Amino acid sequence: MKIYNALTRQKEDFVPLHEGKVNMYVCGITAYAPPHLGHLRTYVAFDIIKEYFQNFKGYDVFYVRNITDVGSVVGDTDNGDDKVELRAMEEHLHPLELVDRIIKSMWDSLDAMRCARPNISPRATGHILDIIEAVQNMIERGYAYEVDGDVYCDVTKVKNYGILSGNTLEHLSAGARLDIDDKKHSPFDFVVWKKAKPNSVLKWNSPWGVGYPGWHIECSVMSTKYLGKTFDIHGGGRDLRFPHHENEIAQNYALYGQDPVKFWMHTGMLNASDGTKMSKSKGNFITASDAISQYGAVPLRWFYANGHYGSNMNISSEAIESTTAGLKKIQNFFYSLNTNVGDNYNKALSDILTTLCHRFEDEMDDDFNTPNAITSIYEFIKQANQIIPTHCYNIDNINEIYGYFCKINSVFKCFDFLEVKDINDDKSGKIEMIEQLMHERNIYRQQKDYKNADKIKAKIIDMGAEVIDNKDGTSTFRLK
Amino acid sequence: MKIYNALTRQKEDFVPLHEGKVNMYVCGITAYAPPHLGHLRTYVAFDIIKEYFQNFKGYDVFYVRNITDVGSVVGDTDNGDDKVELRAMEEHLHPLELVDRIIKSMWDSLDAMRCARPNISPRATGHILDIIEAVQNMIERGYAYEVDGDVYCDVTKVKNYGILSGNTLEHLSAGARLDIDDKKHSPFDFVVWKKAKPNSVLKWNSPWGVGYPGWHIECSVMSTKYLGKTFDIHGGGRDLRFPHHENEIAQNYALYGQDPVKFWMHTGMLNASDGTKMSKSKGNFITASDAISQYGAVPLRWFYANGHYGSNMNISSEAIESTTAGLKKIQNFFYSLNTNVGDNYNKALSDILTTLCHRFEDEMDDDFNTPNAITSIYEFIKQANQIIPTHCYNIDNINEIYGYFCKINSVFKCFDFLEVKDINDDKSGKIEMIEQLMHERNIYRQQKDYKNADKIKAKIIDMGAEVIDNKDGTSTFRLK
Repeated sequence: MKIYNALTRQKEDFVPLHEGKVNMYVCGITAYAPPHLGHLRTYVAFDIIKEYFQNFKGYDVFYVRNITDVGSVVGDTDNGDDKVELRAMEEHLHPLELVDRIIKSMWDSLDAMRCARPNISPRATGHILDIIEAVQNMIERGYAYEVDGDVYCDVTKVKNYGILSGNTLEHLSAGARLDIDDKKHSPFDFVVWKKAKPNSVLKWNSPWGVGYPGWHIECSVMSTKYLGKTFDIHGGGRDLRFPHHENEIAQNYALYGQDPVKFWMHTGMLNASDGTKMSKSKGNFITASDAISQYGAVPLRWFYANGHYGSNMNISSEAIESTTAGLKKIQNFFYSLNTNVGDNYNKALSDILTTLCHRFEDEMDDDFNTPNAITSIYEFIKQANQIIPTHCYNIDNINEIYGYFCKINSVFKCFDFLEVKDINDDKSGKIEMIEQLMHERNIYRQQKDYKNADKIKAKIIDMGAEVIDNKDGTSTFRLK
Repeated sequence: MKIYNALTRQKEDFVPLHEGKVNMYVCGITAYAPPHLGHLRTYVAFDIIKEYFQNFKGYDVFYVRNITDVGSVVGDTDNGDDKVELRAMEEHLHPLELVDRIIKSMWDSLDAMRCARPNISPRATGHILDIIEAVQNMIERGYAYEVDGDVYCDVTKVKNYGILSGNTLEHLSAGARLDIDDKKHSPFDFVVWKKAKPNSVLKWNSPWGVGYPGWHIECSVMSTKYLGKTFDIHGGGRDLRFPHHENEIAQNYALYGQDPVKFWMHTGMLNASDGTKMSKSKGNFITASDAISQYGAVPLRWFYANGHYGSNMNISSEAIESTTAGLKKIQNFFYSLNTNVGDNYNKALSDILTTLCHRFEDEMDDDFNTPNAITSIYEFIKQANQIIPTHCYNIDNINEIYGYFCKINSVFKCFDFLEVKDINDDKSGKIEMIEQLMHERNIYRQQKDYKNADKIKAKIIDMGAEVIDNKDGTSTFRLK
């Protein structure tokens, strides 16, 4: 399989560093504000990638996504206020109280979006000692220097600075419009340890006085702590490429003489429907939890899956409605499958299914091309409808289709209609299950237990059938 | 109000250290196994306490409950394996992977039990630097010594050792049956920093080599970090009184020359129905999530509320059924209130309500006597039924009762039946709301939208009414 490597700017064969394993790190949220639609997009994309590695390619994936609970500053400058501290002060909270609330809100949204939890979600404040040791190491190795309680990484010592983003020191100097900062040797040096302001709460003793870590060093320390000095994939939103990821590489060179990452992967940006970046000031910004309430988690997840992870996407109600219609199409096809036990197994149908299975995997193997992979599903449905326009399928054909949809769903997690039944344990298809439920409902009705009867009716309706109560007291159902 | 102080072994007037504020710390779980019924009991008890302080007494409560993710060792000896490390090894997980899973399971259970999240839930691994500094302080002040990478608290230096538990050094010596540990000056000294075993994962550099913190020091550091050197309440299960809480006091004397805690509060133990302690080996042990599935979160919470927090409780299906019947009684009373707008306001009823409001608060003010406080609710219902056997209440009387139940429910959080309606916005009582729903349902029925009609029916049933569809197509309802 091939993955686009942001470092080399080309698709490369994916060969894991350790056979059968994929170690990946994705930059997580800064815990000062609830996640927004852009975060969801990035984490759904990497969830799909992780599940594909695991369920289709059989890799054992170890996934680390950090939580920045200190060190990310307003404006991403070296002199701004810590975002967590500032917001907490505004809301009259202890900074870690705000952090706990934001972490809860993050899990609520990401769990709703069906993103599997990473193996470890380390917090920066849980790694202060490791960070201090790393900073000390950088100083000892000549890559960092202290000035008045701040410690800066000396980018002029990092030979390949700019390797990821193209922002070499030459390029940076040419386009520079920098605030003068007398403390820094070079204007492009960046902070790895910051002297605390007198009133700040998030601060620790260090060899350079009371301070707190820089944002970039946190990720260098946490990624290598849990994944080793070399690992397979480092991901994040494209806006993190510079300076965050560039500076991570610089730090890793300073610490270990190498960039630990084989593949740098970036998700595209999520824009409003008119193509402009969403932002709070523009009023077109929406939090994850609001978006989930408004659109539903599954339509949103499916919408994201319909774009390539690396492309920018424009989001709007219309765009989500449009992709949701596609999802409905797959659901309707599945519900239309009427078992016809007597019929023979259709070999031609099975062959089409196999072909399209392969096509799905080929598309996913090509840098996780989810939109093309989804197109292959529609293509299968189209051809299946041509072969069997009556929708009367042999049970073995149905089982094959069910298995195919289940496998795809282990990646997309949007095909709730599959939960109708475990077709493998029920040789007669969905209808037998509905018949069983109808029977149970009739018993409740006879016992005048209408509460339970209604519960079962709702279940049958959810399975895509209509319940018809006849005047003579009998009941029947009809698949919609 | 009075609270039983485990330190002085008597009820004492509660006077907060800072006017209008209650700062409390409760020992949280060790994140190596999912919480069990005993944890739920303790955290529900402190949730009730916290809500009572806040909603009845008007205090601004700041509640910290830690998560022990390193340092708690098997058998609570000074030489056992770290519980998290050991369990993670058994389950082939990174220790912090296990910790993340357990923390998720803890929140799932405690959120289900309607326990408000503490303001901060600090993790031991997030405070290693603070702990190392505290250990160093203890050594400098002559209360701790290092031997071969371990650091021990010298209990002989702590003048009041045994003050909480009665386990003074004299008493301990008299009953001693100790393993000989050549490293310790006194056999009762306990570890505050432990040398790491060669294969351990959770370890940090320290002035005494690579190691990890002792369990007890974590709580001394985290409680004082977030609540200050003196705070109002320190709670936990009674089994933590010795050695954990006794050692916390010793450490705090060593560090600050004082026990920071005004009130030490302990919850009683939760036993199986035969009075024996629940334990995994006895097979009468049940995890929180299993218990919640089995009994339901609300019946479980109400069961806990029916015991005094400090008493031991025996749990069984029968005991939970019995307390749930009491809850149903309150629900039935509430549902029985039929508005009679024409009737006059009943002053006698109002007086009884006021009396019982006061009694409720008096009972709660007496060391949070929840069982007696609950009895006062039943007493009110009994007297109300005597005064108005027809259950036809004036709307203003109903509003008063509704307000009283809502206030109580801000502590117990078990009266789901109150969610039926906001009586304050609906002057004609519950019935008007049901009538409105019946009307909406009929419109859906006329439109043959049975799905939505059934949803509304379920809602009406949940409100305690029975829906009767007459043969002529009309529908009526009857309050149960």
